[in-house]
Amino acid sequence: MNKPQIGVVGMAVMGKNLALNMESRGYTVAIYNRTAAKTEKVMKDHAEKNLVPAYTIEDFVKSLETPRRIMMMVQAGKATDAVIAELLPFLDKGDVLIDGGNTFFEDTMRRNKELDDSGINFIGTGVSGGELGALQGPSMMPGGQKEAYDLVAPIFEKIAAKAKDGAPCVTYIGPNGAGHYVKMVHNGIEYGDEQLIDESYDLLRKMVGLSVDEIAEIFGEWNKGELDSYLIDITADILTRKDDLGSDKPIVDLIMDKGGNKGTGKWSSQNALELGIPQSLITESVYARYISVLKDERVAASKVLPAPAGNVDFDKKEIVEKIREALYFSKIMSYAQGFEQMKVASEHYDWDLNFGEIAKIWRAGCIIRARFLQNITDAFDKDANLSNLLMDDYFKDIAAKYQEAVRDVVALAVKAGVPVPAFSAAVAYFDSYRSEVLPANLLQAQRDYFGAHTYERVDREGTFHYSWYEEQ
Amino acid sequence: MNKPQIGVVGMAVMGKNLALNMESRGYTVAIYNRTAAKTEKVMKDHAEKNLVPAYTIEDFVKSLETPRRIMMMVQAGKATDAVIAELLPFLDKGDVLIDGGNTFFEDTMRRNKELDDSGINFIGTGVSGGELGALQGPSMMPGGQKEAYDLVAPIFEKIAAKAKDGAPCVTYIGPNGAGHYVKMVHNGIEYGDEQLIDESYDLLRKMVGLSVDEIAEIFGEWNKGELDSYLIDITADILTRKDDLGSDKPIVDLIMDKGGNKGTGKWSSQNALELGIPQSLITESVYARYISVLKDERVAASKVLPAPAGNVDFDKKEIVEKIREALYFSKIMSYAQGFEQMKVASEHYDWDLNFGEIAKIWRAGCIIRARFLQNITDAFDKDANLSNLLMDDYFKDIAAKYQEAVRDVVALAVKAGVPVPAFSAAVAYFDSYRSEVLPANLLQAQRDYFGAHTYERVDREGTFHYSWYEEQ
Repeated sequence: MNKPQIGVVGMAVMGKNLALNMESRGYTVAIYNRTAAKTEKVMKDHAEKNLVPAYTIEDFVKSLETPRRIMMMVQAGKATDAVIAELLPFLDKGDVLIDGGNTFFEDTMRRNKELDDSGINFIGTGVSGGELGALQGPSMMPGGQKEAYDLVAPIFEKIAAKAKDGAPCVTYIGPNGAGHYVKMVHNGIEYGDEQLIDESYDLLRKMVGLSVDEIAEIFGEWNKGELDSYLIDITADILTRKDDLGSDKPIVDLIMDKGGNKGTGKWSSQNALELGIPQSLITESVYARYISVLKDERVAASKVLPAPAGNVDFDKKEIVEKIREALYFSKIMSYAQGFEQMKVASEHYDWDLNFGEIAKIWRAGCIIRARFLQNITDAFDKDANLSNLLMDDYFKDIAAKYQEAVRDVVALAVKAGVPVPAFSAAVAYFDSYRSEVLPANLLQAQRDYFGAHTYERVDREGTFHYSWYEEQ
Repeated sequence: MNKPQIGVVGMAVMGKNLALNMESRGYTVAIYNRTAAKTEKVMKDHAEKNLVPAYTIEDFVKSLETPRRIMMMVQAGKATDAVIAELLPFLDKGDVLIDGGNTFFEDTMRRNKELDDSGINFIGTGVSGGELGALQGPSMMPGGQKEAYDLVAPIFEKIAAKAKDGAPCVTYIGPNGAGHYVKMVHNGIEYGDEQLIDESYDLLRKMVGLSVDEIAEIFGEWNKGELDSYLIDITADILTRKDDLGSDKPIVDLIMDKGGNKGTGKWSSQNALELGIPQSLITESVYARYISVLKDERVAASKVLPAPAGNVDFDKKEIVEKIREALYFSKIMSYAQGFEQMKVASEHYDWDLNFGEIAKIWRAGCIIRARFLQNITDAFDKDANLSNLLMDDYFKDIAAKYQEAVRDVVALAVKAGVPVPAFSAAVAYFDSYRSEVLPANLLQAQRDYFGAHTYERVDREGTFHYSWYEEQ
């Protein structure tokens, strides 16, 4: 057996599956876990594999081929810092430490800088695809020193998912925190995708009045067209599933409607607010989870706050297609905002992100994988400096064509009393973005009135203040 | 002349006006500014006032009655820390340092803690009302040691604005950063109020087709009813004003539609995201400013992204009243979210906020002052533990009564292509809050499917995971 070409720290499911993935591509993999029992269990379950267990950090590090490649798959935060501190005494200059956790990108920037001083390379990589992705091929978003990436690229390219054209779903994202940043935006976009699907489901259920079975079929149909994606696919599957605890009800009806979150969508929105990016759709999706958690308050409110009186009229056949178009339209707005966020971040943090490459590595492996990502890849292939997805012909034409549908759907939902925060944010974004004049002129007048904040004018250069308190 | 009972550091307009306000209530006020010229100018302009100038920090501190009361009106951030460091060597235990800047509440928490170790009291106070408010009576939101507040309360109560019932618009908010936190939420709410007014104006202009003069009159009318407020009032005034540089156009048409911001709305939204509060309306208002700044992109997009084809039908007389009702409905949603944010923050930071008192001190002096604040005061008088404004009879009834109007307005705006992000967020919040079941059950199924995140059930206690990858 060769000396292990790479080691993995952390034998929870993601770490174990990534190690098995690497091993399956012909690598010998050293494995280590703080609790020895986990390592022993992996060795017992996979005795025939080229895995080299270690039971001390020192043995683990010493077992590796140099320059060493060590991938940490531990809980983001303090655990990551603790593992780094334990590893550090045994590492040599030029070794590559990789953090594959869901780490906040500013922590990755800090660690990359701290370790750089001692000559240790540090890569923070997004890994998307869940447990199955880790085992069979995730989408990977690595950031850090370019020369360090080159040392791990052969392994990453082998273990990553492959797009339909055979391209591995991994590429060098950029320096320091760039990889974890892009993963954060990926997750934000994922929140948006899920919220849009959930609003579509809610409308089909509450407004159109379809059964769970009928909706499962609709999502199955949608998955054959331009909406073809992992999340639509699993939604169709979920809606066919019955209670696993005995009743014959759809499982979805037995699941508590309190949306959980691990914080990445929140980070994404907080950062958009920080950098001045109008990223409303993802933020509304985060808030939709927050309000869902207030279950007791909602149940109480549902008893005293009345539903709207009016009935809504629509053609039952047409409305399903309209909701499909509304979903695709809104998805485009969400990605336009997400790519805008990465564009501004790239400038702000000096990362030189390649948006076409990012779209490419999201085509397979990750949770947001979708046929649609090929259209984004194509758009950036045509114009690497595209200012906004909406300015690409394909997306512009879809938006133009589907805008009537999304307007109809939002108008109906609003009248029917079914909440559509993400669809509404999509329309508001589109209409704001295509507005030559927004009422921010009045806002600037208000701010100048009460706070002497000054304003610009449309007809000349400079900064102006109006004498509001003097008689004209 | 008495020894000065209070000193003010920073003779920019806010500091100068606060000092003059104090002096006008019978106090002798020491003043200091880093650049002596500013202090000299104030003395020259107000030679007859009981102001005591100082030209060194030491002289300034020594001139004051003990325990000393020193109010800093300097730029938030590093300047505040610098002034504190300069003052510290000359202060004694029990002195009260007051920061009246627009400081981020976490900085105030830190400073309060740091100074507490040396026995110096530290109050961070929100001061709202702009320049004129500072001079004539602002609304003040002080947080810090209660015993320190008691030392400044007589002065603050004299200089603060008075509500119609004569109550001063100042009260002890809570420990450490509570005052600056409440000011931050105040400013977030202000963003929301402004955005709602701006969307109303935009609809009256672009959808209804009214002239600026006609809209000025409408806002003037609105200001006589339940919308009676400072911001509606100045909007009516602004819309009557003509170009001050010679043309006869309305000034609003000459102001560039790029919305500025000083960061307090952003902080408010970032904190809501952090604490898990669905504060969508303020956030959409922040994003509306951000997208307005992309003027060049918008102008380019306006040339290629088509407007919706359909015409919208409405009764020109009815629609104005509907927009008024939509504005009031949405304002209620915004305040419901803002008070929800303070409720959660009060628990989280252990501040024991009194929401009725907060509503009371916003009734006059501050930018969001409005007749409506009396209704909020009344609601918390009736029930100090009100879970949400929407559960108070007054607000519940208005929401029930006006919901048809806001639904009509949003539906029309969405079809007309006029962006209404804040109105839309208001409706989505209302409909989410009164939803017994939200589609977060599907979300939880999705999260469990791809990430084994588990879910709760509606019919039994515990945490569950479905075997999605096994055949049923």
